Amino acid sequence: MWFGIIMAGGSGTRFWPLSRELYPKQFLSLDGGSSLLQGTIDRVVPLIPQERLWIMVGPKHEAETRRVLRLAEREGLPARVFVEPNSRNTLAPLAVAAARLVRSDPDAVLAVMASDHLIAPQEKFLALLKQACTIAEKQEVILTFGVLPTRPETGFGYIEMGEVVQEESNGLSSVFQVKSFVEKPDRERAERYVAGKRHLWNSGMLAFRAHVFLEELRLHQPEFHKALETYSEAIQTEREDRALAELYAKAPSTSVDYGLLEKSCRVWTISADLDWKDVGSWSALDDISEKDDGGNIIRGNVVSLHNQNCILYGDKRILATIGLKDLVIVDTDDATLVCHKDEAQKVREVVTELKSRNCVEAQEHRTTHRPWGHYTILDQGPNYKIKNVTVNPRSRLSYQMHLHRSEHWVVIAGTARITLEGQDIFLHVNQSIDIPKTTRHRIENPGKVPLVIIEVQNGEYLEEDDIIRFSDDYQRQTEETRTGPSAGEKT
Amino acid sequence: MWFGIIMAGGSGTRFWPLSRELYPKQFLSLDGGSSLLQGTIDRVVPLIPQERLWIMVGPKHEAETRRVLRLAEREGLPARVFVEPNSRNTLAPLAVAAARLVRSDPDAVLAVMASDHLIAPQEKFLALLKQACTIAEKQEVILTFGVLPTRPETGFGYIEMGEVVQEESNGLSSVFQVKSFVEKPDRERAERYVAGKRHLWNSGMLAFRAHVFLEELRLHQPEFHKALETYSEAIQTEREDRALAELYAKAPSTSVDYGLLEKSCRVWTISADLDWKDVGSWSALDDISEKDDGGNIIRGNVVSLHNQNCILYGDKRILATIGLKDLVIVDTDDATLVCHKDEAQKVREVVTELKSRNCVEAQEHRTTHRPWGHYTILDQGPNYKIKNVTVNPRSRLSYQMHLHRSEHWVVIAGTARITLEGQDIFLHVNQSIDIPKTTRHRIENPGKVPLVIIEVQNGEYLEEDDIIRFSDDYQRQTEETRTGPSAGEKT
Repeated sequence: MWFGIIMAGGSGTRFWPLSRELYPKQFLSLDGGSSLLQGTIDRVVPLIPQERLWIMVGPKHEAETRRVLRLAEREGLPARVFVEPNSRNTLAPLAVAAARLVRSDPDAVLAVMASDHLIAPQEKFLALLKQACTIAEKQEVILTFGVLPTRPETGFGYIEMGEVVQEESNGLSSVFQVKSFVEKPDRERAERYVAGKRHLWNSGMLAFRAHVFLEELRLHQPEFHKALETYSEAIQTEREDRALAELYAKAPSTSVDYGLLEKSCRVWTISADLDWKDVGSWSALDDISEKDDGGNIIRGNVVSLHNQNCILYGDKRILATIGLKDLVIVDTDDATLVCHKDEAQKVREVVTELKSRNCVEAQEHRTTHRPWGHYTILDQGPNYKIKNVTVNPRSRLSYQMHLHRSEHWVVIAGTARITLEGQDIFLHVNQSIDIPKTTRHRIENPGKVPLVIIEVQNGEYLEEDDIIRFSDDYQRQTEETRTGPSAGEKT
Repeated sequence: MWFGIIMAGGSGTRFWPLSRELYPKQFLSLDGGSSLLQGTIDRVVPLIPQERLWIMVGPKHEAETRRVLRLAEREGLPARVFVEPNSRNTLAPLAVAAARLVRSDPDAVLAVMASDHLIAPQEKFLALLKQACTIAEKQEVILTFGVLPTRPETGFGYIEMGEVVQEESNGLSSVFQVKSFVEKPDRERAERYVAGKRHLWNSGMLAFRAHVFLEELRLHQPEFHKALETYSEAIQTEREDRALAELYAKAPSTSVDYGLLEKSCRVWTISADLDWKDVGSWSALDDISEKDDGGNIIRGNVVSLHNQNCILYGDKRILATIGLKDLVIVDTDDATLVCHKDEAQKVREVVTELKSRNCVEAQEHRTTHRPWGHYTILDQGPNYKIKNVTVNPRSRLSYQMHLHRSEHWVVIAGTARITLEGQDIFLHVNQSIDIPKTTRHRIENPGKVPLVIIEVQNGEYLEEDDIIRFSDDYQRQTEETRTGPSAGEKT
């Protein structure tokens, strides 16, 4: 069977402040439509049904990934979210996916794609994917997708084509052996590559049979392969989580390109005539968005006077701009970026600087999503914090208690069922309730419209990890399941 | 006696978004110290005591002006805030001040100055002011302050010097007859003026005896002078307010320069060797602020990477800037300006655009000051509004009622005395109370530290003018004094 492996790592630095460490690029909509991750899933499901998609994520991105899947409300079994213990580049997660899938299906074909690329047109993509999976099914090779270059791009790696394996025919694309992988070239070399017609952009997409991948891994990464076999024995046993953590502790933090493909002689490339975009920085939005007469890309609450070739992303506040040229401006609730387009790569430096200052703005947005809804911090200061808490219809928070804070709730939309020390109370718009410290409580939205509550917290310690859970609809750690201290728990 | 007349009009457009219509330039601190208005008062009081200062303001700026005076906490009688019925440029308020002062002191000397200029050094300024007032006392002239130009500035008007009246001597400055007033010149003419040494910058400062001013007004503005005499008869009677309104309805909306000085032949100028700055736009801050190695002026929460010659004013949120040149960026709670320095004059266009969109951001900041303290709107949406309300020690709001909203208060700092339908209740940190619609209520801070309350408003109409006052410490309209509908009333 064919499986789709969607790589959804990402550090959230390149599109800061719209992206954050906990909210990287795949969760953004860069073209005004759905998120890149959602777009990736939508693109592949006509060929590979959702229940055979594996989304490989780090632990920080699990919740948001599940939220994207819930929002899509697709019928049938959901995609599988595979949570890596930590970030180990691309070789390790692909090895794990191959090791797992080969157990249930010795002939499993894996189609690997990034979660944050833009690809069009859909029909051509599906035809290529089908062709690639068909080849992978029959041939003992790892197939890369080499995109026909349309400009001397210096931001991508290239694939040098070797012998032709299969000529273009009947709507099928030509396939070549891979002669070499080339790192990001300088401008002059990139121009030669485009002119010479022997090089393709390395898109990062792959197709291979699991057992071929594992064979090559045995040859070229024997130590890691051995550790992988130890993990494989633990799959679907109670030891699995621990075995995975041990594997990741040993796994090389390397890319599949560097760690395997460049070493293997069983790599082919399919020549993909696609409109493929790995939008790598704010300035690259120029290629994908509509512009006004001045060449500006404008979204949100913006006053734009006499600007040229700017990217202006407003938010709630007014962003007033006058006489600007070639700038990127991105406004969010808690941070604003103003950057020359030529320096857009240096947004990483800002994120590094913010981390060194311990600024939460590097990691999170002011609005935080939870399985039951979301909350936004409106204001905070010594001993108080104010949140707008929105609970989805028919959802509820955990039954919980805080040691260090009292809470005061005012309902401003919807109807709440409050449980306070075992007693149920209904609260309507305009009604309020006090929740003293160390009392057990729960908020539930039993209704059909969102419940919105303004929460004023008071206390000497107001972090999210002051929470003791007694029961939870979302299987988060409770008093029952608690085995030791755990940092960074959430409401 | 000598009186200081401080002109505190201003439309608040040039320094938007830090200035607003209700918060113009004189309330800002441009050099990081106290406000320009406060600086003006501080500068003059060694020569003219506070109780002989008249601050001429429009009705929109009365409250903020009084707040500045309160903040200064100077001993002795306070300065007088004279509220003009509406804005009529500079001739009308000076005529009114002269008409009023001449009644109590026929020899009154008026020293006129702007509220929003930067002037140094203090000693030189006081010597000049003293010299000017002394001359005005003895001579039947209107004395202007002509600042020695240091560069061919095209943003100021110039005064052409005539015959010398008094040579420089014994630390006294030279004084000239005025040959002519010159409008803002072009660059070439400005250069000739500076080289020719016969022109001075027209600073707008004046010194004259009230009766001289009125005499000249009779000559050159006979109709207005007649109306002024009618008003004069009503001074210190119960008809005064009405008479002032009638006068302003007839008053020409013209500057004292154009309406009087240019027509008069009794105008002298004192040559002022001062460091005088009428900071006219964001880009002019370059002249008054310290810079980093890249020539940037940086304040507040800013990350600055590889910028040159920028003015970067951060606020609470992070302002991240990369690779910028010659820009002005000003971040505030509810609006951000990003503007090329060469286009700083066009900030007015933004304000015009915002007004045409009915955006409150043209008029007000998100934090509003009141005689009893201040409030900040944290969030608002359909049927709710959330405020952080801070009440100064030993202050209280009016005893009031709302027809369309209920209020929920949580104390987060200090102690409150709440009056609810005649009953007094003390609320401490962490305590809350509900105020239903149409109940009479008052918040008081009886304590010695600021009281901070989070207010959640609920209702179908949440504007400030849904208020019925029963009594008020600050003489704002109450049920007792109400004579008709009044728009735009405030808490």
